[in-house]
Amino acid sequence: MGNKYSIGIDFGTKSGRAVLVEVETGKEIATSIYEYPDGVIDQELPLAEEKVELGTDWALQNPDDYLQVVYRTVPAVVKEAGVEAEQVIGLGIDFTACTMLPVDEAGEPLCNKQEFRNRPDAWVKLWKHHAAQPYATRLNEIARERGEDFLKRYGGKISSEWMIPKIWETLDNDPEIYEKADRFMEATDWVIMKLTGEEKRNISTTGYKAIWSRETGYPEPEFFKALDPGLENLVEEKLSTDIYDLGLKVGNLLPDIAGKLGLKPETAVAVANVDSFVSVPAVTVTEPGKMVMVMGTSICHMVIDRKEQFVPGMTGVIRNGILPDFYGYEAGQSAVGDIFEWYVREGIPEYFLKEAEKNDKDVYQYLEEKAAELRPGESGLLALDWLNGNRSVLVDADLTGMILGLHLNSKPGEIFRALMEATAYGTNMIIRTFEESGVEINELYACGGLAQKNETLMQIFSDVTGKPIKIAASEQTPALGSAMFGAVAAGSEKGGYDDIGEASKKMAHLQEKEYRPIADNVEIYSKLYSEYEKLHDYFGRGENDVMKRLKAIKQRYE
Amino acid sequence: MGNKYSIGIDFGTKSGRAVLVEVETGKEIATSIYEYPDGVIDQELPLAEEKVELGTDWALQNPDDYLQVVYRTVPAVVKEAGVEAEQVIGLGIDFTACTMLPVDEAGEPLCNKQEFRNRPDAWVKLWKHHAAQPYATRLNEIARERGEDFLKRYGGKISSEWMIPKIWETLDNDPEIYEKADRFMEATDWVIMKLTGEEKRNISTTGYKAIWSRETGYPEPEFFKALDPGLENLVEEKLSTDIYDLGLKVGNLLPDIAGKLGLKPETAVAVANVDSFVSVPAVTVTEPGKMVMVMGTSICHMVIDRKEQFVPGMTGVIRNGILPDFYGYEAGQSAVGDIFEWYVREGIPEYFLKEAEKNDKDVYQYLEEKAAELRPGESGLLALDWLNGNRSVLVDADLTGMILGLHLNSKPGEIFRALMEATAYGTNMIIRTFEESGVEINELYACGGLAQKNETLMQIFSDVTGKPIKIAASEQTPALGSAMFGAVAAGSEKGGYDDIGEASKKMAHLQEKEYRPIADNVEIYSKLYSEYEKLHDYFGRGENDVMKRLKAIKQRYE
Repeated sequence: MGNKYSIGIDFGTKSGRAVLVEVETGKEIATSIYEYPDGVIDQELPLAEEKVELGTDWALQNPDDYLQVVYRTVPAVVKEAGVEAEQVIGLGIDFTACTMLPVDEAGEPLCNKQEFRNRPDAWVKLWKHHAAQPYATRLNEIARERGEDFLKRYGGKISSEWMIPKIWETLDNDPEIYEKADRFMEATDWVIMKLTGEEKRNISTTGYKAIWSRETGYPEPEFFKALDPGLENLVEEKLSTDIYDLGLKVGNLLPDIAGKLGLKPETAVAVANVDSFVSVPAVTVTEPGKMVMVMGTSICHMVIDRKEQFVPGMTGVIRNGILPDFYGYEAGQSAVGDIFEWYVREGIPEYFLKEAEKNDKDVYQYLEEKAAELRPGESGLLALDWLNGNRSVLVDADLTGMILGLHLNSKPGEIFRALMEATAYGTNMIIRTFEESGVEINELYACGGLAQKNETLMQIFSDVTGKPIKIAASEQTPALGSAMFGAVAAGSEKGGYDDIGEASKKMAHLQEKEYRPIADNVEIYSKLYSEYEKLHDYFGRGENDVMKRLKAIKQRYE
Repeated sequence: MGNKYSIGIDFGTKSGRAVLVEVETGKEIATSIYEYPDGVIDQELPLAEEKVELGTDWALQNPDDYLQVVYRTVPAVVKEAGVEAEQVIGLGIDFTACTMLPVDEAGEPLCNKQEFRNRPDAWVKLWKHHAAQPYATRLNEIARERGEDFLKRYGGKISSEWMIPKIWETLDNDPEIYEKADRFMEATDWVIMKLTGEEKRNISTTGYKAIWSRETGYPEPEFFKALDPGLENLVEEKLSTDIYDLGLKVGNLLPDIAGKLGLKPETAVAVANVDSFVSVPAVTVTEPGKMVMVMGTSICHMVIDRKEQFVPGMTGVIRNGILPDFYGYEAGQSAVGDIFEWYVREGIPEYFLKEAEKNDKDVYQYLEEKAAELRPGESGLLALDWLNGNRSVLVDADLTGMILGLHLNSKPGEIFRALMEATAYGTNMIIRTFEESGVEINELYACGGLAQKNETLMQIFSDVTGKPIKIAASEQTPALGSAMFGAVAAGSEKGGYDDIGEASKKMAHLQEKEYRPIADNVEIYSKLYSEYEKLHDYFGRGENDVMKRLKAIKQRYE
């Protein structure tokens, strides 16, 4: 019958991609990408009959787009790989989070019902839907006033991107939608339910995004009542309390779905997962002391440990939230690649583009080359990497970016290097905070576009943190990770694996290239980092709240 | 015999320009510009026979270039205007300062002697020759240790651009040049000497640049000895102590020079002057309470008063230094137009250039237009205008620029406006410091390229300072001012004026357009200015010397 394969599907912000992977080796045999036809819905609802405009900070999606990804990419990879349906033993998915939607009793999205199609709150609220910020702000105030213990699991703050603020916003905006919602689901769980017919809420999004823990469950009804009397019975009435660990099998493919996909109904389907978390075993990490960085537009930092520690400003700590039998810790930087993209878009002069062209380089390559010519501190510049606020460790969306040391000779390569260094200082701040809180971090593991492409950046990260960095071999780390969880769902009996550790050992690989800190650079960067730290605390911890005051003045005009 | 005319020659950094002006009205009849053939000599000496490279921060000029300006531009304006030699009754000049040179007994520059031509210290040291910084630093240390009273007249610090550090550098670099120098002269006095045969040192450069005052003269020999025993008798041996007020007549043109220029030998020649100071009466200012800003690559701020006050961080206060019978105060910002030029050169993206082109605007116009669309504080950005250090009131060349409030949507128009606002805050800091020290400032008067061209900038200056701003009508304010002093040298008997106040009333004019503070803007800017002030003091007054520490690290690589 030949080799066994597993399929991983990674649902991103703009598109979904399936990868078909050889179970024994982790070799990626075929890939297929499909862009969501409605993309990110942030201007108006995609309706033929009437125009419904969305407010500032709204970001919705169409749940049908997710199913289209499955129907189009899975048959494509099976076909491209030329494998038999029987050879595909498992399937796993990962998703952005918290990306959530209201559904009816049958699990049908409310936005698919004719009567609710023109109601924004009936649609999928994407992770980066930020219109619930007022609800998050109020929730945090009330939680602090009540001394809610759960806050410490989230570094002291619940984000507007998470589930409870988004649900509260729905109740407040459109009570009928709230009432008609049989339940609110994470999109990742909803897709798995559509494939298998089974609703098995995954522990990760429940723990990290819906204020739940195995030990204490969701917050008490009293807390929800304090937010809004209408929310008092939210958990009982509209949230699943049936929570499943990662690595479990949800069930098999529904026969009609299997037929549509060209797979067997016996194909095992894994509990739904999150894009960053599936990346952890996919970069070979299944034990403590190793921090994984998913490096793209932002950075998601993850580390597992046997103990529960409360780290100031982390995004969350959830037992079994990343890998079974460990406390999973998450932290993050809200902009990294996005900062570089901003600079390339808004700050690169024409002569520099021409030089790049003359050197037969694209602008990123040439910027990296120019930045690489400089030694640590040679630019004379120091930046704060808060151009999209600060997620960890300050958890403050109202902070802004800064660059200091500018002089009449400052050049693009210098500014670009300073921005790269700032993101490395931001990561170092997170690492130091974990270490000071008793979570050990000895090595870094990185995946994602920036880790693959920008060698200068990775060397800077190694020099600034003083730690070695290993890089994922796969350029599709999340999809690979999902395929690994699919193989675990199938189990060894079917030719897969019995746990994710085993799958990781066989299927996950690293590049040969490894970044190691260079002693001279480490020394200078320790000086520069202490300058960063001083400004970080000055602007970020209340000594001078100029950034917030400037934002308040700016917002008068909005 | 018809109308009377006067000629003003303005010697700039790269070129000189003559303007022929109608004495009765101040009308500018003809202009001629000549670029210095050797320009700014900052790489190697202009020698055919051998290559002599200059060190970092050197900036020399060739004194022959100044005479070429006279020989070429003066006949050109006389010819262009079509006036008779007899009608030109006076001539005045103004110069950059301190721009100085060593000469022999006959007044011949040492660099013109074959044996010294390849010796850098024999040439003219231009105002922006900064290689004497170590001497200035040491001089300030010694002056402070000795409790020298003169420091308070210069805001507490002698600049490396001034005469004594430049002379000390010559002694230290090349003792033979020092020894062979019969005297060290300001280039402005030297040119007047060449035209008239008379050496009459002007009070302005002596006072502002050579640590001299009418009351106390130069520093004591003991002070010079403390610098270097070789300097002990510097004043007695090599500096003129024969000091003349502005507005006086030095003499008439030497007959052979007059012949060369197509003028009469009876043409009266005024005491040499400085480019910024001649601008004061040329923008109609001859009384206290009115600050004049010469706005170009940098800003020079001048105000006159009947009292002597010691203003922290001003460049200098000299009795009769700007206008007779007043104490003249000078302060400055070391980069203003230079900051905008830096941003246009290093920070404007291609799409913005294309938009500008599509709108049929040059990039400055389009930036100004975009900036003008924003209201105060709408950018959310705040900058420190120290991209070339801070001249007043911190007097610290090691400070650097900063921009804060950056986010992923920050646009060029916003950044440009923040930079403009920063320069206005810098000027406001100077104004406030003067006011707090008891020097009254009720109105602002501006001349120079930026004042003429950038209406948005001028409105911002008015809104930030809360003061009205009047703008010079002339685009050649310094040359007009010099012509005015030429008319005063001629005197009323010859058809000129008896004092500069009278000349100013008749010959100086303002634009009709006047900028007035807009109440709403003033209110927001007072908030933003207090944010600027807080950061100014935090970074500039020792609370966090990060800028200096970054510079020190950077300098390791130089």
